[in-house]
Amino acid sequence: MSNQPTKQKLWGGRFTGKTDPLMHEFNQSLRYDQRMWAADIAGSIAYAKALNLAGILTKDEQEKIVQGLTAVGQEWEQGFDIQPDDEDIHTANERRLSELIGPLGGKLHTGRSRNDQVATDMRLWLLTEIKHVVRGLKGLIRVMVERADKEKDILLPGYTHLQRGQPIRWSHLLLSHAFSFRADLERLSQLIPRISVLPLGCGALAGNPFVVDREFLAKELGFSSVAENSLYGVGDRDFIVEFMMWASLAMTHVSRMAEDLIIYSTAEFGFVTLSDAYSTGSSIMPQKKNPDSLELLRGKSGRVFGDMAGFLMTLKGLPSTYNKDLQEDKEPLFDSYDTVSASFKIAEGVIATMEVHAEKMREALTMDVLATDLADYLVRKGIPFRETHHISGRAVALAESRKCQLNDLSLEDYKQLSDKFSEDVQSVFDFEASVERRESIGGTSRKMIERQVSVLRTALEQMLPEEKA
Amino acid sequence: MSNQPTKQKLWGGRFTGKTDPLMHEFNQSLRYDQRMWAADIAGSIAYAKALNLAGILTKDEQEKIVQGLTAVGQEWEQGFDIQPDDEDIHTANERRLSELIGPLGGKLHTGRSRNDQVATDMRLWLLTEIKHVVRGLKGLIRVMVERADKEKDILLPGYTHLQRGQPIRWSHLLLSHAFSFRADLERLSQLIPRISVLPLGCGALAGNPFVVDREFLAKELGFSSVAENSLYGVGDRDFIVEFMMWASLAMTHVSRMAEDLIIYSTAEFGFVTLSDAYSTGSSIMPQKKNPDSLELLRGKSGRVFGDMAGFLMTLKGLPSTYNKDLQEDKEPLFDSYDTVSASFKIAEGVIATMEVHAEKMREALTMDVLATDLADYLVRKGIPFRETHHISGRAVALAESRKCQLNDLSLEDYKQLSDKFSEDVQSVFDFEASVERRESIGGTSRKMIERQVSVLRTALEQMLPEEKA
Amino acid sequence: MSNQPTKQKLWGGRFTGKTDPLMHEFNQSLRYDQRMWAADIAGSIAYAKALNLAGILTKDEQEKIVQGLTAVGQEWEQGFDIQPDDEDIHTANERRLSELIGPLGGKLHTGRSRNDQVATDMRLWLLTEIKHVVRGLKGLIRVMVERADKEKDILLPGYTHLQRGQPIRWSHLLLSHAFSFRADLERLSQLIPRISVLPLGCGALAGNPFVVDREFLAKELGFSSVAENSLYGVGDRDFIVEFMMWASLAMTHVSRMAEDLIIYSTAEFGFVTLSDAYSTGSSIMPQKKNPDSLELLRGKSGRVFGDMAGFLMTLKGLPSTYNKDLQEDKEPLFDSYDTVSASFKIAEGVIATMEVHAEKMREALTMDVLATDLADYLVRKGIPFRETHHISGRAVALAESRKCQLNDLSLEDYKQLSDKFSEDVQSVFDFEASVERRESIGGTSRKMIERQVSVLRTALEQMLPEEKA
Amino acid sequence: MSNQPTKQKLWGGRFTGKTDPLMHEFNQSLRYDQRMWAADIAGSIAYAKALNLAGILTKDEQEKIVQGLTAVGQEWEQGFDIQPDDEDIHTANERRLSELIGPLGGKLHTGRSRNDQVATDMRLWLLTEIKHVVRGLKGLIRVMVERADKEKDILLPGYTHLQRGQPIRWSHLLLSHAFSFRADLERLSQLIPRISVLPLGCGALAGNPFVVDREFLAKELGFSSVAENSLYGVGDRDFIVEFMMWASLAMTHVSRMAEDLIIYSTAEFGFVTLSDAYSTGSSIMPQKKNPDSLELLRGKSGRVFGDMAGFLMTLKGLPSTYNKDLQEDKEPLFDSYDTVSASFKIAEGVIATMEVHAEKMREALTMDVLATDLADYLVRKGIPFRETHHISGRAVALAESRKCQLNDLSLEDYKQLSDKFSEDVQSVFDFEASVERRESIGGTSRKMIERQVSVLRTALEQMLPEEKA
Repeated sequence: MSNQPTKQKLWGGRFTGKTDPLMHEFNQSLRYDQRMWAADIAGSIAYAKALNLAGILTKDEQEKIVQGLTAVGQEWEQGFDIQPDDEDIHTANERRLSELIGPLGGKLHTGRSRNDQVATDMRLWLLTEIKHVVRGLKGLIRVMVERADKEKDILLPGYTHLQRGQPIRWSHLLLSHAFSFRADLERLSQLIPRISVLPLGCGALAGNPFVVDREFLAKELGFSSVAENSLYGVGDRDFIVEFMMWASLAMTHVSRMAEDLIIYSTAEFGFVTLSDAYSTGSSIMPQKKNPDSLELLRGKSGRVFGDMAGFLMTLKGLPSTYNKDLQEDKEPLFDSYDTVSASFKIAEGVIATMEVHAEKMREALTMDVLATDLADYLVRKGIPFRETHHISGRAVALAESRKCQLNDLSLEDYKQLSDKFSEDVQSVFDFEASVERRESIGGTSRKMIERQVSVLRTALEQMLPEEKA
Repeated sequence: MSNQPTKQKLWGGRFTGKTDPLMHEFNQSLRYDQRMWAADIAGSIAYAKALNLAGILTKDEQEKIVQGLTAVGQEWEQGFDIQPDDEDIHTANERRLSELIGPLGGKLHTGRSRNDQVATDMRLWLLTEIKHVVRGLKGLIRVMVERADKEKDILLPGYTHLQRGQPIRWSHLLLSHAFSFRADLERLSQLIPRISVLPLGCGALAGNPFVVDREFLAKELGFSSVAENSLYGVGDRDFIVEFMMWASLAMTHVSRMAEDLIIYSTAEFGFVTLSDAYSTGSSIMPQKKNPDSLELLRGKSGRVFGDMAGFLMTLKGLPSTYNKDLQEDKEPLFDSYDTVSASFKIAEGVIATMEVHAEKMREALTMDVLATDLADYLVRKGIPFRETHHISGRAVALAESRKCQLNDLSLEDYKQLSDKFSEDVQSVFDFEASVERRESIGGTSRKMIERQVSVLRTALEQMLPEEKA
Repeated sequence: MSNQPTKQKLWGGRFTGKTDPLMHEFNQSLRYDQRMWAADIAGSIAYAKALNLAGILTKDEQEKIVQGLTAVGQEWEQGFDIQPDDEDIHTANERRLSELIGPLGGKLHTGRSRNDQVATDMRLWLLTEIKHVVRGLKGLIRVMVERADKEKDILLPGYTHLQRGQPIRWSHLLLSHAFSFRADLERLSQLIPRISVLPLGCGALAGNPFVVDREFLAKELGFSSVAENSLYGVGDRDFIVEFMMWASLAMTHVSRMAEDLIIYSTAEFGFVTLSDAYSTGSSIMPQKKNPDSLELLRGKSGRVFGDMAGFLMTLKGLPSTYNKDLQEDKEPLFDSYDTVSASFKIAEGVIATMEVHAEKMREALTMDVLATDLADYLVRKGIPFRETHHISGRAVALAESRKCQLNDLSLEDYKQLSDKFSEDVQSVFDFEASVERRESIGGTSRKMIERQVSVLRTALEQMLPEEKA
Repeated sequence: MSNQPTKQKLWGGRFTGKTDPLMHEFNQSLRYDQRMWAADIAGSIAYAKALNLAGILTKDEQEKIVQGLTAVGQEWEQGFDIQPDDEDIHTANERRLSELIGPLGGKLHTGRSRNDQVATDMRLWLLTEIKHVVRGLKGLIRVMVERADKEKDILLPGYTHLQRGQPIRWSHLLLSHAFSFRADLERLSQLIPRISVLPLGCGALAGNPFVVDREFLAKELGFSSVAENSLYGVGDRDFIVEFMMWASLAMTHVSRMAEDLIIYSTAEFGFVTLSDAYSTGSSIMPQKKNPDSLELLRGKSGRVFGDMAGFLMTLKGLPSTYNKDLQEDKEPLFDSYDTVSASFKIAEGVIATMEVHAEKMREALTMDVLATDLADYLVRKGIPFRETHHISGRAVALAESRKCQLNDLSLEDYKQLSDKFSEDVQSVFDFEASVERRESIGGTSRKMIERQVSVLRTALEQMLPEEKA
């Protein structure tokens, strides 16, 4: 091994040995962090301006650096020429800057560390990209709300435990998922300000010794606040964890909706048919039309959870400030972001294009789903519910044993179960009347559906409006 | 098997077989959900009032039910007599109510289901108990802020990668953890309104057919809003997931602080000594004093993560509305709540009582932690940082090879590395001056510490104030 | 605070402060580790014998200690009197022993630490209890194999993507799950020897200085080998992780089987009906009969995963040997053990008692599930499969557009799709013939079912036979 | 949308709509599953031979197909020309085969499905690649054993709770980690046969209707057994879960070793120094030399856990046989494989090249680590250990209060603590003697180290020998 310092690395002054090529590969992050090139350049441009304000760079030096950085950015757009020694996006950009503008490039990193730089880049990247997530999520909610608004007339059984429970409107089911997504939108709106906290100016760990104006930096870069403690600023990855927790929960919602629709797509249920655009077939079974899109949506909830769970394990028990373990934050973040973005779009397409089979849903409305209404009928005649529940249960059992429906039992039969039954018991056997009775807030009556549609439309308008998101 | 309906269960009307005793055990939740007895009673009292308003109960019936429920509550306080057939807290309470007031008790469940009831109970329970978490978390932050405010004079090396980096104030380190906890407090304040959404009145799944006034119910029970979709209202467990995600992240913060302090407690570092109150010894090694409290805090971060991860897996791919899988929500919630509550208190006690060894910290401040300042010295003389970094690196290597400190090198030595060095290089070797130079926001200078203390004190006052929490 | 050493703790010699009562609670493990009392006593009895062989105890002392320990064990059976200062099962037992036999009790811990003691207790406990898991798992496999053997005549559609694929025997489906469980049995048989490694004699960390005969100890306690490195012996918890990983995978199998059966229990599929013994009803909907047992089985897969995931996070990045974090090993282990044990028994009961509706399964066998056979028919006439797949696909599309079944298309129709079709195409439309054609190993023909039954019966006999397990 | 069937897809016969381009992207797996091209080709070659034996292909057809496949394989080696419609590696290879040899290519898929094909490919790929993992793991163990064998003379404190406990040999510590890895090797050797179970011939789900000889296929492809149930064969991904569980546990071992060494690399401990080849520096702090390699190793344990946890969640509650969710198996498997492979190599390099500072370790051996030996000294004089533990504890406290070491206390001092102390108490204060006393199996004496070295060397020879692995 040579005794010459390893000049090619930013940090090489005190090093004399060579890096193991395997270690170089293990350590380098450029293959994935190049995705943040624009954020890295933007951060450096703002920093150059701040160094000028702090008296470290002359106006002229600042301008040369900004021009150089702009040129580097253009190279990224057109195909940046990566060198073997480029460890990460920061060193690649600084290396190239110095090639373009000479030793002056070496002034840019004054008072800055890759520790505050990378944290800034990731936050900036996410703040920019998260808008696509917002847009995707809103698109999904919107298509659900619009379908729900149009298809209010369709009734089907509502299920608990996958067993038929009570009749509901199809729109009610669609909207129940939309409310999950509305909550995701709300959570996202609260998370964004916590992403928007500027680390730049924290230095390696102890703060910036050239007293750069961090509020200026925040303003330049569009951050809404500034990290108040430099150790925390360089070592905190909560915004990444939070985003991945958010994505995990959102994907859990996606998985539950997908499960409903996969089951409703079976030949046995037959409630919905996915469009060909979101289905695939079998390489061997010619009749197959599979809801692959929904299965992928369901399956990918695991993937996003894995991203989050893995990184949380990485964080557990880590000493404070920066440790190299933190480099493991990028790949799961990018993967979660990509997955959740694509998933919202696919889900939107699936919902927008699927065919709904109202008549199959109606066929599934067997009279036993009115057993609660039957019990309620007796309640209105003054019998305590606990008793009417048993009476209705006996009616169900009787119908089952006769292999008939509840409305096929005679008034005689009913009277034997309770003398409170009279002719008007037949009025119970009306699905439309049943759903219309549920008109407390949250119920499945037409008016309550309209209320939900309106609540969601307002949320779409007011939460994270485009111009602000 | 008898053909008689199984009378003893609330739901037994149509059933003729007996439950497998193992299944009874597998299915029953009373052993843990009895913890919510007060919430269950409160919810039922409010519901009785709403049934009266809806014309289902007379005023007199309502009052008898409320008296009965109050009596049941008193029994819980004094030792409730659990019966073998009590499946869960809801059936236990209703069974006992009917024993006390007769068949009238059977009117209480009119239009209600255990589906909306249990969701209400859990939210109500959590809203009540979460105040202890808020108090614990604030107590922890407060003790950190107070220590930090008092111990500003103590310097120690700040570490990255567990290697000495730059000198910092001890308070800066304490506060860096406090800022993590401040973010936890903020997140909690945003989460609470999402817990405070009333499910009662959603019925089994389709809504309430007796048109109870849900806004009245919300007001009675102190909820801030009402679930807008009944399917969502009975099937949504996001508030539990969110609380456990919150707790997992908070415990990750605890684990990182614990790791710092465990390492600082080693004989080799010797920076802090835990009080005996939070240490234990060895059954075999008489000299041992172990930081068990911190190790448990670190270890329990895994436990809370496991609670969250497990329940999220349970939720994944579940059909919408209520499925029995959801019963798995309670034990992890209770466990997370208990763990996080106790952990904040223990952490507070540890921080409050540990001894800090300022002199050991000072001893660890070797001159190499001023190498950045040495490079900055040259920057101020006009050399680009990238070059000064290398020059300073060579100085470090030279001192290392001579087994001396940076300030032991002669001016001659320095001049050989760069002719910009002059006499005043000695001014670099001053730890106090180094920390004072970091006075951008977030830096480790005295003024910036004071700023942090003030920011945190304001947060403690303004976020989740006691009377509102 | 008193300056007196805290005498009451095993480790109190050098301590002068008092333990915070909250810390006592946070630290103590007796509330759950008392479950291992028998293992703790057995380990101590063996250790007393080894101390005698090593010359530390006289034969008389050994006997007195063994008698004392036996008496303590009897107290546990009848209701042990726990004292507030009993930190854990080890200190409780040693405290009580010394009360019973005096200062001689203080000789038992010679050369032993709670570090090697607790690891020994847990392994011994698990080795004993795991037999119930083996028995439960075998019981489940057995009932599946017996049902499969009896119900070979029943055909139903095999599903992929929950879409009807090809006809299969019902037994084939049951056995597919049984093969998952067979693999669990195999994994368990390989795991047991890794549990059966003795830590006792490792001391606190460095080994035993009184040179006790560890092979004697292993033999006494029924361990099959001895930990070869004392640091590893006290710090290794892989056997717990492995058991929980095993349990997580096994419960994933349970969850997939439960999902199949929950779907098959819907009114829409109608393939199976659970016995009342494993179903419950609704408190509000009288007609409901819910497959709660299966839903709990599915849901509890999350719980066991959470146990594993949480503890693995606890272990991550832990320094070697014993750290107090390891105390977090017991609760998840016990919980996983309890859950998996109960789940196997419930699953066995569900499978044993559920009703299978052969006629509903037959009804679901629509002709389109023979589309592959139709393509294969043409393959046998020499057309490449890729082409016959398309032809069969067109036939399916034609039948769909005519709203008829494949066998309702005329020979004319078929000939228009391919001139290789002839009269004998009707022979394709025979479900029994289709399943009988699948008679490569693994296929769904009767003979292959019989082969599977036989393979599984052999496994049940040969793997972990009762006398050895 | 056109009414023409979508001809370009393998499964397009019954489809008339177009796939959404986003869905095409969401669904396609070629970007990652092309990694299995060689396995896919090998599987197809074997299958062509089996089809010939089954009478589906003539010898001539078989040969043409094999030649075609071989040519496709060569194209992959040199740069395969991927087409937009290539969904996955199977369709890409079949598409290209048919381009090369015409419609005959369409015969290859007879009786086969992508379901059995992909499961075969993955198992075959893993069986091939896992050899690198075995080699890497053995390399790591070997370097640890060799260092341990050479450095037996070096003593240091053994730690529990990161507090100094008892003196041990440095080799003992190294070997403690090696024993974790030995267990990983054992587990791997048991897992491999479960990977080596052939799915090919299971068809889509119900088995192979052309009765291909699956035992022939297994032999051709080097599988050790054949899946006995076709539903299980296509739907089982346990081998992937098991590999990732294995990798998670192995990486947990890596993380614990890394944690030890990171702490030992601090300036405060100073026990080891990593070679420059496995360290990096700081972009801002010139003096820094960071153990990045170890931090990455520690951090990546989270990543592999995330792969496993995510996929297990994907599997949870999935209906049996193939569902598209299973496509999520590949990326985590590949990622785990890559990470664990690289990690073993990096760890080996780190261990092989790090410098050990025996004198710093010796300095850390303060006399208090002999407190157990001091208690044992009195045990040998007949006092019960529980009492000697307290006496030794008082001695430690006395020395602490005098700020001296245990061996600085006078005989007088000792006698005041117990009259059993005599002149020979000085013999206790000998670290070498202390470690030599630990010579039960597993102890830290020289002989026991030699035993461990020998046990591990035997394992390296006998477990998964190169020619068989």
